[in-house]
Parts: sequence; C-alpha cells; structure tokens
Amino acid sequence: MGSLPNQDSDNGFPITINPFEPEEFRKHAHLVIDFIVEYYKNIENYPVRSQVEPGYLKKRAPDSAPYDPEPVEDILRDVKKDIIPGLTHWQSPNFYGYFPSNMSTAGFLGEMLCTAFNTPGFNWITSPASTELENIVMDWIGKMLQLPSEFLFSGGGGGVIQGTTCEAILCTVVAARDKMLQKVGHDGIGKLVVYASDQTHSAFQKASQIAGIRRENFRTVGTTPDNAFAMTASVLRAAIESDIESGLVPLFLCPTIGTTSSTAVDPLGPLCDVAKEFGLWVHVDAAYAGSACICPEFRHFLDGVEKTDSFSFNPHKWFFTTMDSCCLWVKDPAVLVEALSTNPEYLRNKASESKRVVDYKDWQICLNRRFRSLKLWLVLRRYGVANLRNFLRRHVRMAKDFEGLMRSEKMFEVVVPRNFSTVVFRMLPVNYSSSPRVFGDQAANELTAKLLESVNETGKIFMTHAVVGGVYVIRFAIGATLTENRHINLAWDMLQEHGNQLLLTLS
Amino acid sequence: MGSLPNQDSDNGFPITINPFEPEEFRKHAHLVIDFIVEYYKNIENYPVRSQVEPGYLKKRAPDSAPYDPEPVEDILRDVKKDIIPGLTHWQSPNFYGYFPSNMSTAGFLGEMLCTAFNTPGFNWITSPASTELENIVMDWIGKMLQLPSEFLFSGGGGGVIQGTTCEAILCTVVAARDKMLQKVGHDGIGKLVVYASDQTHSAFQKASQIAGIRRENFRTVGTTPDNAFAMTASVLRAAIESDIESGLVPLFLCPTIGTTSSTAVDPLGPLCDVAKEFGLWVHVDAAYAGSACICPEFRHFLDGVEKTDSFSFNPHKWFFTTMDSCCLWVKDPAVLVEALSTNPEYLRNKASESKRVVDYKDWQICLNRRFRSLKLWLVLRRYGVANLRNFLRRHVRMAKDFEGLMRSEKMFEVVVPRNFSTVVFRMLPVNYSSSPRVFGDQAANELTAKLLESVNETGKIFMTHAVVGGVYVIRFAIGATLTENRHINLAWDMLQEHGNQLLLTLS
Repeated sequence: MGSLPNQDSDNGFPITINPFEPEEFRKHAHLVIDFIVEYYKNIENYPVRSQVEPGYLKKRAPDSAPYDPEPVEDILRDVKKDIIPGLTHWQSPNFYGYFPSNMSTAGFLGEMLCTAFNTPGFNWITSPASTELENIVMDWIGKMLQLPSEFLFSGGGGGVIQGTTCEAILCTVVAARDKMLQKVGHDGIGKLVVYASDQTHSAFQKASQIAGIRRENFRTVGTTPDNAFAMTASVLRAAIESDIESGLVPLFLCPTIGTTSSTAVDPLGPLCDVAKEFGLWVHVDAAYAGSACICPEFRHFLDGVEKTDSFSFNPHKWFFTTMDSCCLWVKDPAVLVEALSTNPEYLRNKASESKRVVDYKDWQICLNRRFRSLKLWLVLRRYGVANLRNFLRRHVRMAKDFEGLMRSEKMFEVVVPRNFSTVVFRMLPVNYSSSPRVFGDQAANELTAKLLESVNETGKIFMTHAVVGGVYVIRFAIGATLTENRHINLAWDMLQEHGNQLLLTLS
Repeated sequence: MGSLPNQDSDNGFPITINPFEPEEFRKHAHLVIDFIVEYYKNIENYPVRSQVEPGYLKKRAPDSAPYDPEPVEDILRDVKKDIIPGLTHWQSPNFYGYFPSNMSTAGFLGEMLCTAFNTPGFNWITSPASTELENIVMDWIGKMLQLPSEFLFSGGGGGVIQGTTCEAILCTVVAARDKMLQKVGHDGIGKLVVYASDQTHSAFQKASQIAGIRRENFRTVGTTPDNAFAMTASVLRAAIESDIESGLVPLFLCPTIGTTSSTAVDPLGPLCDVAKEFGLWVHVDAAYAGSACICPEFRHFLDGVEKTDSFSFNPHKWFFTTMDSCCLWVKDPAVLVEALSTNPEYLRNKASESKRVVDYKDWQICLNRRFRSLKLWLVLRRYGVANLRNFLRRHVRMAKDFEGLMRSEKMFEVVVPRNFSTVVFRMLPVNYSSSPRVFGDQAANELTAKLLESVNETGKIFMTHAVVGGVYVIRFAIGATLTENRHINLAWDMLQEHGNQLLLTLS
C-alpha cells in the first residue's frame, strides 16, 4: 500500500549539517563543558560588572543571520571574544549585587537532563514523571521549610514550580480576584484593593496591574526605621478600614520575608490576623530569604505562615539552582485551577478526565512548561539537607562577620540590622566631624553613591544600592556559590581604600 | 582593620560536598552528557507515550528529601529506572502528538552556556550581552521571516524572547487594554471585547481572562470546513458591529497562522482591514507554523502581517530550539513598556537613565529572565538559513508524502487540506458500504478514536486528536528532529494494520 523512499533520502532537500547526530552531539557537548570549566576557572579575571558601552555588540555582529553553517569552534571563539566581555558575572565570587543568582554542579546537571528530555509537561500525560516529580519535590521542600501540612499535596494543598515571583503572584492575585468577583460581580474589579508595604518588590505592583487592578488601588503601607522597615498590623488595619469606608473592596495582602532593599521581615502572624478579619488573600513573598528558613535557627521568620493562603520562594536566587524556578505553594489549589484552567478538546485525555492527576497547565499562566523539578531533585539529593543548610549558614556567617567589620570602622554605618546574608550600609563623612548627623543624610547619600560607583567601576567587586527611609544605602548581598572568606576580605579592603580616598577629597 | 579567617575556613559549618568545584563539575557534566547520548541512542526502544499509572513515582520515592548527600551515579541510576519510564518521549522520531517540541545539538549547546552564565538579564546593565544579543537575534529572525521593518529594532519596533505564547499574548493584551482604558476610563474594562476564531488556541482565552477581560466578552468567530476553518472577515465584521451596537468596546483580535486543531491559516490582510477600521489591536499567533515562513515558498501565509500590531512564533516548537522560547515582535514597544514597566529605586542605573538601552523587564511579565537568545544564536549560526529551511522542508515533504499515502487508502480520509507538516485525518467504516457517509460522522468519530487509542497504546508511535466541525480527527504532526522516512513508513504500516483490525471488528 505504498511507502516513502528509503531512510537515507533527503526528501529532495539536501542539508550540509545534521541537526542532531548522537556522536556529534557528544563531541560538541564535551567541548562546551570544557569551555564552561575554563570560564569558571578564569571568572575572577573578568570585571564583575560588564564594562561595555551600549550598542557594543551591534558593531561586532553581521546584520543578518548567516546563510551557511559555521563551525562550533568559531562560535565558541565569538562567545569568548564578544559575549563574555558583555556579561555581568553573576557567578563571580565577587558579585554582591541585587540578590544572588547562584548555581551548583547538581543544578547544572539537572538542567542538562531537563533540556535533553525537552518535555512540555502541561498535562500529566505529556510526561507523567515531570508532574509527579514536581509533586514530590514540592512536598519535600515544603517539609524542609516546615510549611503547614495544608500547603502540601499530602495535606490537601500543593506546590508548583513557576518561573519567577511575578508569575507566582500574578496567578494568586488572579485566583483571589476571580473568587471575589464571583461574590461582588465583574463590575467590582475597579474596587479591588491590594496591599503591600513600601518595601515590597515591584513585582507585586506589576502583577496587580496585569490582573487589571486599578493602579490607584495599589495600597502602599508605610514602614519606618523604628520597625526595621517591617509592615505593622496597625498601619495595615488603618489602610484597610479607610478603604472600606470609601466603598472599596480589600482583596490581597503581600507580606515579604526578606525585602529587596533591606531584607526586612514582615510579621506574618499579626498581619494575617488583620487580613483574615477582612477576608483578604495573603501571599507570602520569600523570594530571597525563604531558602534560609530550611535552617531551624531561621525558621522563626516564617512564624504565622500557617495563617496565609500561599507562599513562594525562588530556588534560583539563593538555593544553588539555576534559573528559572520559583516554588509556589497554595492551600486551596481548586481556586487556582478555577481561575486558570482551560480544557480545549485537543488536550483532553483519559488521565485528566479520571481526576486522579495534576495538570499543571491549570496552576500557571503558561501552557508549556519545562521539567524544572529535575534540577531541584538533583540539588536536594546530591547535597542533602545537611549540606544545603551549611551552604546557607556559611553565607550568613560571612555576612555576620562582614557586618562586624563594618561596625568596627567609623566611616561606615550599618543602616539596618542584618537578618540574613545581606549587609545594608552607608558611608559617612566622618572626617568632617565626630557627629556625622551634622551634615545630614544628603551628604552621606552623595558620598555613599560615590563610593558605590568608585568601587563598582574597578570591576573587582560589584554591589548595588537601595534607598530606605530616605537613606541611600549599599546592599552587600552574599550568596554566590564561589564566594569564600578571602573574597569578603578583598571587598572589605577595597571599601576601606576607596572610602579613605573619598574622605581625602572632602577635606 | 580586621579581616575574616583564611580562605579555607568553613566558617564553622562543615560541608561534605562542594556545591561547585570546577574539576568535579567537569567530571560529572561529562558523565551526564554520555548518559544523554545513551538516552538518545535508545530512544526508539521506549514506548513513546509513557505507560505508567497515576501515582507511580510516589510509590518509589521517599517521603522527604535526604539528609545526607547521594552520589551522582546513584541519581542517574534512578533517572534511568524511575524517570525515563515516566516520560512521554517528545524527542522520539515516532512522536507525532500535539505540535513538536524539537531540539538540536546547537540548541542544547546554547542552553548549556545560558545555564552556565546564569545571568538574569532584566536590565541592560545586568548583562549587556544578554539584551544586545537578543536585539540582534530578533532582528535576524524578523528578516528571515520578511517581517515589515516596523517590527525590527532597526525600523523602530523590536522583538523580545518570551517563554510561551500565552505570555506573549498576555503582554500584548495588557498593552492594548491599558491604551484603551486611557481613552475610556478604567470602568470600561468590563466592556472590552476580544476576538478569535473557534479554532484559536486556548492560550488566548486564558491570557484574556488573566488580564481581567470578562469571560463573556471573549468573542468566538465561527469557522466552517468550506473555508478550511479559517476566520472570515465578514463574520468578524458582523461580530464587531453587533458588539458596538450593544455598547461594548472591541479591543483585540488574535488571528492564527496554523491553528492547533487543523493548522488553518487566518487571512491576515482581510481580517486586518476590518480590525483596523474599528481600531483593534491585532496580534498574530504563528506559534507552530511561523517557522515554515522562513522558506520563501511558505511566506505567503504571512501576507498582510504588515497591517498587524504584533506577531509571535515559538522556536521551541518546530525550530530546533529547546524550551522555552517564544519570539514576540511589536511595532510600538512604547505601548508595551507603558503597560509593563516598573522603576524601583534598587534597579535604577545610569545605563537605563541614558535611554540608550533596552531594559527587557519592561517588555514581559517576569523580572528575571534567562539568556535565551544564546540558544537561538547557536541554532542560527551553526546551521545557517539554508539548512534550517531544508530541515523544515524535509518535514513538510514527509507530511505531503504521508498525506498522499492517506489519500490512496479508502479507509482513511484527509479531513482538512494540509498546509504545513501536520496531516489531519480520520478513519471511515468503509467495509459497511462504499458510501461511508451513510453511517454519519458519529460512526467515523468513534472508529477514529478507537484507532488512535489502539495505535497509541502500543507505544510504538504517538499521535493526538482534535475535533473540527464536529469531526473527530487524528493529528499527525511531523517535526521531531530524529524523524526520517522510515519512521513515517512504520507509522503508515501501523495505521493500516490497526485500521484493518478495527474494520474486522465491524463486520
């Protein structure tokens, strides 16, 4: 009954390179691994913050894609020549900017397997292992964090690996929104109000806007240095009561464990007591600091989490797992599924209809999803809980020691007490007077900004800034996998050296 | 002025495994590469659709993460024993389900480099190469697709690599929404209407819901077999006019190039003429079939794209690039940025303030973003335009030949004329009569469903279904990188064999 030409046929369209041939794949993959090892071995020789000018790459690249194939060796040569100089090296041991984006051997191996299988696990049937391993890993991590059992699959809740915090928040805001609109009607969407502190990450505001919450209904709860920039229940209550009086509908509260500017911790218990009184959904954003809470001595920062509705943290920040991965747990997955499910004919299958499986497409924005749990599974098994805790404790210890050095030096001031592995400090114009406050924050702000730029432009270390309570601060966020005490000492030496230079210019 | 203990210190927290040591990394990465090569060499021995039962993995996994570390060798043993049986093998040459999720050696190499650098390129400064290579690659692919210059950076527009189509559509719907709400006020959100055909992917409905569009304002434009399930301008016009009469506000149209069920092509020119008359944003979803349009002979499917506002296609489907990657181009990036930008103090930097750079955080939902352009750059350079076109043409040729075989066999019917590499067919109860229509669609639907399950459960090949115009069809989507003519012949033999068996049961 007919057949196509034999297997060697090019079907009339000759190719000069096979897109996938196992032995060629092996050869080139090994080549790239060795290239990567060389990159890591040399990483301290590169300026941490890229020193290229805007538009640098356009000048070096052709205007259009090549018509003919190029050897892998030529491409790797260009990676070295053109790409690496344009990197800001987040994996450098001298990277202290933003929050870390750290990695590990195990995480890399998991990512390779994920890429090789390349399964879009949107429904259970599209790769049962992808969904089931995610179920398992999320319960494992939930237990490591001592989340209440209602957040675990084993307790009727469940977890999902999202790409980023913004996605996780968007999914929960939409779930909360749709649940509320069922009560108040769709016309009420303009009345919904969401709450966060003035320290909360911009991702929350963005997610709320995307979900159609009015920009003017994004309520910012003020914080003060007296409370170490944590949200307080009384200010939250006042804001909610005022909104209700104005005829608005309070919807959602997003407390943070470890804010971006100063790693402040919002007190979950008291905040939830208020929020729950008014029926708000509470989502905890622990993107950075959640990791640390696998250590018993830091778990208290999550006290009160049992009263919340959802919780997320990002293994791709400070948990030795490459991007992207944001773990989100919810107590009531049905609300998430209600808001996010679709059921087109072409995706129907017996397993889904049996209701015995999780179809993660209904837990997230996207349909297609990578087999992200593999890398977390590799990290957890390869290192074990004991090592993971100690990896984190070492970073926290470095930060504690660095904070101690800072406090020993008159020209520096630790502006906010340290909670985790990030030290928030500023520089003071101390040679003007023994009482720097005489010069006001403005002088210190300017000096601190100068110090930051002066140090960053050397390329030897990289830090970033924030402004808390009107004070310009440098954030020294420890968490790169390769950072050791000697790197902290290098940074400390540089800060003193550049600080002293700056003080000379003042006198 | 003080310093921390020497570099060998464990800071009081001993670890038994280093999270990253270059030589150990090299050793284990090579091990995993060899593991992956073995996987690919054996891939035809695995059942394409996983045969595990729901809950299979839970039975095999411990209840909590290990406290102590485990050897990489043990973990890989478990990947083979526990994970691979739970995979549906999208990389199998016998995978014809959904749309492909194909890969290539070059794509894999790019993904390894992306993972190794692990840079979150949210702002230009966080890794200039990440942003600039994305600018370049997006212009390259835009030119390969002969997109109008207004979509390219070089022409005042620009492109961004999103994770999935749903994200791309969500970003453009939100951009269009906020632009419209500036005119009509936020209270108008309940009046906004979005339009798509009854063949459009569920991602559009989902994105609209997330953006706060009322579910009842998701307008489905009916299609018919007479137009090969393409949307028609006259039906669209009627729907828009009716909505305007009802006091609603038409917002957004999403035509598809290559629908999921039958790879139908909506005619962009005539649809845009209507949409633009009423001021709608038009976004083209070419997730699957966009790839083919780099071949001059298929480019006509995009005719009219010059009248649209945005366009997306997914290299992670049929462009030899691993997940996730969805290329989105917009004519007016400012509208996207207006809707999606945030500017918190802690992300401020000189480069952004110079307005000379692109900050991709304002072009997407998420903040963090992987260096996805690397894998596309590797694919484009390693293969070149000539090979990429021929890779695609070979798949289309296989589909054309397979369609020919189908048409030669009385028990099969090609239900919708083939446009690309997907053949849409059904089985007919031909031994009952020479005129199968006597038995109606219902009999054919049931028979086709039986055929699909009968073939799929062998594990030898995997296909999925759809329903178009009330007709249950099997979609035979060719696009796996490893598929050769011999695999198509195997599938053809199996379909005939199982078809004949089924006919016997009817007589």
